[in-house]
Amino acid sequence: MKHIISVLVENESGVLSRVSGLFSARGFNIESLTVAPVGDKQTSRITLVTGGDGPIIEQILKQLHKLIPVIQVVNLSEGPHVGRELMLIKVSTERGQDKNVRDEIMDIVAIFRAQVVDATPTSLIIEVTGDNDKLHACLAMLEPYGVGEVVRTGQVALARGNRK
Amino acid sequence: MKHIISVLVENESGVLSRVSGLFSARGFNIESLTVAPVGDKQTSRITLVTGGDGPIIEQILKQLHKLIPVIQVVNLSEGPHVGRELMLIKVSTERGQDKNVRDEIMDIVAIFRAQVVDATPTSLIIEVTGDNDKLHACLAMLEPYGVGEVVRTGQVALARGNRK
Repeated sequence: MKHIISVLVENESGVLSRVSGLFSARGFNIESLTVAPVGDKQTSRITLVTGGDGPIIEQILKQLHKLIPVIQVVNLSEGPHVGRELMLIKVSTERGQDKNVRDEIMDIVAIFRAQVVDATPTSLIIEVTGDNDKLHACLAMLEPYGVGEVVRTGQVALARGNRK
Repeated sequence: MKHIISVLVENESGVLSRVSGLFSARGFNIESLTVAPVGDKQTSRITLVTGGDGPIIEQILKQLHKLIPVIQVVNLSEGPHVGRELMLIKVSTERGQDKNVRDEIMDIVAIFRAQVVDATPTSLIIEVTGDNDKLHACLAMLEPYGVGEVVRTGQVALARGNRK
């Protein structure tokens, strides 16, 4: 089972290394992780996605709570939540001298409510957001046109309604 | 100066902790970081944003290169690039029984080309993507309506054109 763990921390040098170290010390792979400042810039929110066993996750969460710069730890997968991520995909358009090919790419962009965020004579950069499945589907549709570099943010999530 | 560092790594337990540890060992604060699998799932791309001095960054990049699971290191800030991030903002709508208030919120959503990704009787979750300035501007516009939790992915970026 996938767990989405949200950790609010004070901005201190080394906190990310310590949080991620708690997982790797147990051989737990962190599938994705994001960290960025929120609010007053004194705090950052880490969102990490990991697979694995309930009881071991519980143990890790307890240890996270004990780290000094950690303010709050929530396992968002335990209740209703909204998870989204962003992907940038570079698509080659050298073949796109052919207008049909460009049109096909733009159709895919429209279907996935994606957007073109950069264009050069030889490439487009496409931004798409959504859940994991949508991102993979969009990437699979673009692959025949020649995909270059790809970068994903990994998932961020918030609990639905007033739940924290 | 802000540096956007893109690091392609093999998916090994502990790699994130080692990469982030290289920065914290020098007292360098990582402003934001994202890591997620790309391609064949054997590799992940880390994008991190950090401030600081050119020569020290150069040193850190050299040491990153030497880490075994690191395949490629690029300082994207050294050339033209496209950087984007995603933010989820929970807005209270308890006052939103008043239709005018809901309309005002939806106007802000439209102005920033944001989208509502969840709604309950007491809250909305709004997704907005763009650069740092746009995200802050959108958040500032929503604050008077009562902002709850906020989560950001941190920036991801790709080089423009055929540059890697």
